[in-house]
Amino acid sequence: MRCAVGIDFGTESARALLVDCADGRELGVAVHAYEHGVIDERLPMPDDHVTLGTDWALQDPLDYVRALQHTVPRLLDETGVAPADVVGIGIDFTSCTMLPALADGTPLCAVDELRREPHAWVKLWKHHAAQPEADRINAVAEARGEPWLARYGGRYSAEWFFSKALQILDESPETYARADRLLEAADWIVWQLTGVETRNMCTAGYKAMWSEESGFPDEAFFAALDPRFARVVDEKMSRTLLPLGSRAGRLCARAAAWTGLEPGTPVATANVDAHVSVPAVGVVEPGRFVAIMGTSTCDILAGRELAHVPGMCGVVADGALPGLYAYEAGQSAVGDIFAWFVDSVGTPHDVLGNRAAALRPGESGLLALDWWNGNRSVLVDGDLRGLLVGMSLATRPHEIYRALIEATAFGTRVIVDAFERGGVPVEDVVACGGLPDRNPLLMQIYADVLGRSISVAGSAQAPALGAAMFGAVVAGEHASIVDASRAMAPPMREVYRPDPEAVAVYARLYREYLRLHDLFGRDPDSVMKRLNDVRREQRELRPEAARD
Amino acid sequence: MRCAVGIDFGTESARALLVDCADGRELGVAVHAYEHGVIDERLPMPDDHVTLGTDWALQDPLDYVRALQHTVPRLLDETGVAPADVVGIGIDFTSCTMLPALADGTPLCAVDELRREPHAWVKLWKHHAAQPEADRINAVAEARGEPWLARYGGRYSAEWFFSKALQILDESPETYARADRLLEAADWIVWQLTGVETRNMCTAGYKAMWSEESGFPDEAFFAALDPRFARVVDEKMSRTLLPLGSRAGRLCARAAAWTGLEPGTPVATANVDAHVSVPAVGVVEPGRFVAIMGTSTCDILAGRELAHVPGMCGVVADGALPGLYAYEAGQSAVGDIFAWFVDSVGTPHDVLGNRAAALRPGESGLLALDWWNGNRSVLVDGDLRGLLVGMSLATRPHEIYRALIEATAFGTRVIVDAFERGGVPVEDVVACGGLPDRNPLLMQIYADVLGRSISVAGSAQAPALGAAMFGAVVAGEHASIVDASRAMAPPMREVYRPDPEAVAVYARLYREYLRLHDLFGRDPDSVMKRLNDVRREQRELRPEAARD
Repeated sequence: MRCAVGIDFGTESARALLVDCADGRELGVAVHAYEHGVIDERLPMPDDHVTLGTDWALQDPLDYVRALQHTVPRLLDETGVAPADVVGIGIDFTSCTMLPALADGTPLCAVDELRREPHAWVKLWKHHAAQPEADRINAVAEARGEPWLARYGGRYSAEWFFSKALQILDESPETYARADRLLEAADWIVWQLTGVETRNMCTAGYKAMWSEESGFPDEAFFAALDPRFARVVDEKMSRTLLPLGSRAGRLCARAAAWTGLEPGTPVATANVDAHVSVPAVGVVEPGRFVAIMGTSTCDILAGRELAHVPGMCGVVADGALPGLYAYEAGQSAVGDIFAWFVDSVGTPHDVLGNRAAALRPGESGLLALDWWNGNRSVLVDGDLRGLLVGMSLATRPHEIYRALIEATAFGTRVIVDAFERGGVPVEDVVACGGLPDRNPLLMQIYADVLGRSISVAGSAQAPALGAAMFGAVVAGEHASIVDASRAMAPPMREVYRPDPEAVAVYARLYREYLRLHDLFGRDPDSVMKRLNDVRREQRELRPEAARD
Repeated sequence: MRCAVGIDFGTESARALLVDCADGRELGVAVHAYEHGVIDERLPMPDDHVTLGTDWALQDPLDYVRALQHTVPRLLDETGVAPADVVGIGIDFTSCTMLPALADGTPLCAVDELRREPHAWVKLWKHHAAQPEADRINAVAEARGEPWLARYGGRYSAEWFFSKALQILDESPETYARADRLLEAADWIVWQLTGVETRNMCTAGYKAMWSEESGFPDEAFFAALDPRFARVVDEKMSRTLLPLGSRAGRLCARAAAWTGLEPGTPVATANVDAHVSVPAVGVVEPGRFVAIMGTSTCDILAGRELAHVPGMCGVVADGALPGLYAYEAGQSAVGDIFAWFVDSVGTPHDVLGNRAAALRPGESGLLALDWWNGNRSVLVDGDLRGLLVGMSLATRPHEIYRALIEATAFGTRVIVDAFERGGVPVEDVVACGGLPDRNPLLMQIYADVLGRSISVAGSAQAPALGAAMFGAVVAGEHASIVDASRAMAPPMREVYRPDPEAVAVYARLYREYLRLHDLFGRDPDSVMKRLNDVRREQRELRPEAARD
């Protein structure tokens, strides 16, 4: 037997999966929660004295190494698979999760005198404190007519690489100066595994303004942001980028000791959790909309042509599958909204879900806008907020719960419609992630709202499986990720087919959703904007309230 | 000591109050819950077989008599006041609460062979099953250009007298034929007390199309509704109407035996709970807006001139105070909305209220439309529904709770503004009812939203006190209800003064409330209407769901 290990570095934990390279059979899995998890209040120091600002979210890079040390040996132990039978290793990571490091790969936060400096730590994907830098980047890019901006739906996010890098420079120039390297945590962990620094095309394309045709933006652009930032790419990054599916290197002795695997085992180039899921769910063709549904939703759609679709997060050639453009889009809150509601009413998901399943579409008279965490879809506006309309004294919590599910489905339909109108065809929908397994009501509503069949992926751990597939590819077990996917992706677990009667009702409700969507989302003087203005002013006036 | 008894017949119970006629001092109170309460599922029969339709709400008139038998003797017993010292009796009632009776006052539902006929029972004010009849009345009145329609803000309600009477004729013509009399329960209970049938001007004016200048509508109008309805006034009602403050009669022997009071004690003409509260809270002048705040809110405002104010429920000369027009307006759900939310989230009022009190106006970013039970204010549209906007993942239940309170305050401001624009000045606001006592946060928010001081009435049982004042007037203890009010109304308990900073913030939020109000409330193609269409159709398709 020839096996591959895929390691998925998530937000709260890492998960290592051991699979058979021949057929993708899952031999074992091991999960390890990060010791320090998401660091968003204070640095994990004995004295607890370094507190973080609003919207900060950091991680400790040593947690990633500890995850390797815990999961892989356990996997070998529990499965009884011999290290020699593990022929390839792949990883995927959240993104953009980035850190500053010394030239030898030492994270700055591991340097004694920098340990109390928040900017020396890993900035997690959901670190949202770089909004001023993102605003500056967008303003400068628009003013200069930067061509790359269109590839990001016209807006560069506060979550992305240069927003975060520029925040370090703005707020802690000495930390910026100490950073020999600025890199994605995905590339950093591959560096730890191989002992050699490499960079991947995927994160460069989606998060760092890079494209195969044009490379990175000019120095003049970076200089316009800050003269000290002019040479950020050449000083602290790399113009050498490896395509997905290529070998980053071989397992170094140190990492072999951490994991119990054989030194020299091939390690695949770093990848991103959403993108690595595409082959894992068996999608290797254009036109299949892959929705990775969890607390938020990330959608990946491959197309043959390059198009600029409003609201897409990014498009990268070979970004998920070779020879195809991979478009990324998403919704900034999905499962998070349901969890919010469950917390608010104190009734468990399954109780609400069972009652909600007995309702007919539209029967509650309720309709919601799913913007509890802004809108990162076609409106690209983090200031938007949720809305619920249609309540009567007879309205019950399970009716609201269903309306919230429906709202997120309408939000997905807006994205699907935008791709189709933008010239990127959508043939069918494949769902994976945490939500589809647990929530048949949700899947049926999505099928009815989208008017399309939705297949639920066979693997409950798509990212780790996808990472293992890339491990199998660099081991030479498959000629390409497409071949690996065909051999190793499990069959779809289930297909939800639209019910024509429900489709007709939801088509009417979707028209009303769109009316509200445009009314509140496109009017620069919308009620939501004015409420936000008041909210911000009033929070400013409250001395103790720092969080927003 | 010379005392008066006031008996307030509410929705669930009756409350008798004994007061000193000289100064209004409250000597004792006795409450009795109706045996059958609100009858809205099945008639109270041993076999349980007569079930009621959607939106029905009945009462048993014998419950009212039993309430007299229980409360007044207990009051005398507990206070030790001698029956001879009780010199006058007044009552007030919910309205329009009406019933069919025989010529001798026997309620039809007390006639053996009619007991299983739902139309033979009392139709409670919140019986909402006569909407088709109300629609017909409005259509016919508009087509005929009936002049009285303007006095009701342009719309006659399904809750009112002729809607309910016409429903009896429509659905049970034999019951209609058996009814020698159709009358308000207020007048019926006075009949039981005095042995003589009388009718009061107040309910005739607010609920039965009557005015002092024009009397009832023509027979031709009633004939246009149904030829058998042409002579309803002359056949089953009365054109002799007594003004408020007049004596309806004297306590008859039978009622004296029920109550333990002296036969011959003067009994005041029947009155309505909201209207009788005006003198009880010490308001005897025009321009003082009295808000009776409970599950819903009823507002009474006296003015010197007759004006047609959009959204008012009705205006009647001498309807609350002699020599003044009394305008009635209201909000169809206030406390009910807060109770709905408390039920939904399972957190008690006081916990939510304490947390909500710590918020600054506008700090939550939330805004609501208070239409959980439609809008009976300027929009006069029962199909409207609630709306909440501004939710984020950080939104907490107490923030929503506060937004709901604020929404009802904005709803009150719409009414106050409509009166002022319509030429009926509002000088200040006096609040009474169940809500003001229990909820200082609510009162402060109302003061800040209205930008006016709000006085909270001194008596926690304003309707019963007002009824007792009318008892004192017919006893000759005071020359008029104005004099009685000056002598007997307790001083205001508390005054809430607007905080200028909060007033400024709420002025901004009120502008946004008005934008939503007009957007959803005035557009005949509004999203709320379309949602209602879908809701109704889908509920029709569900066989077991009769309720709406």
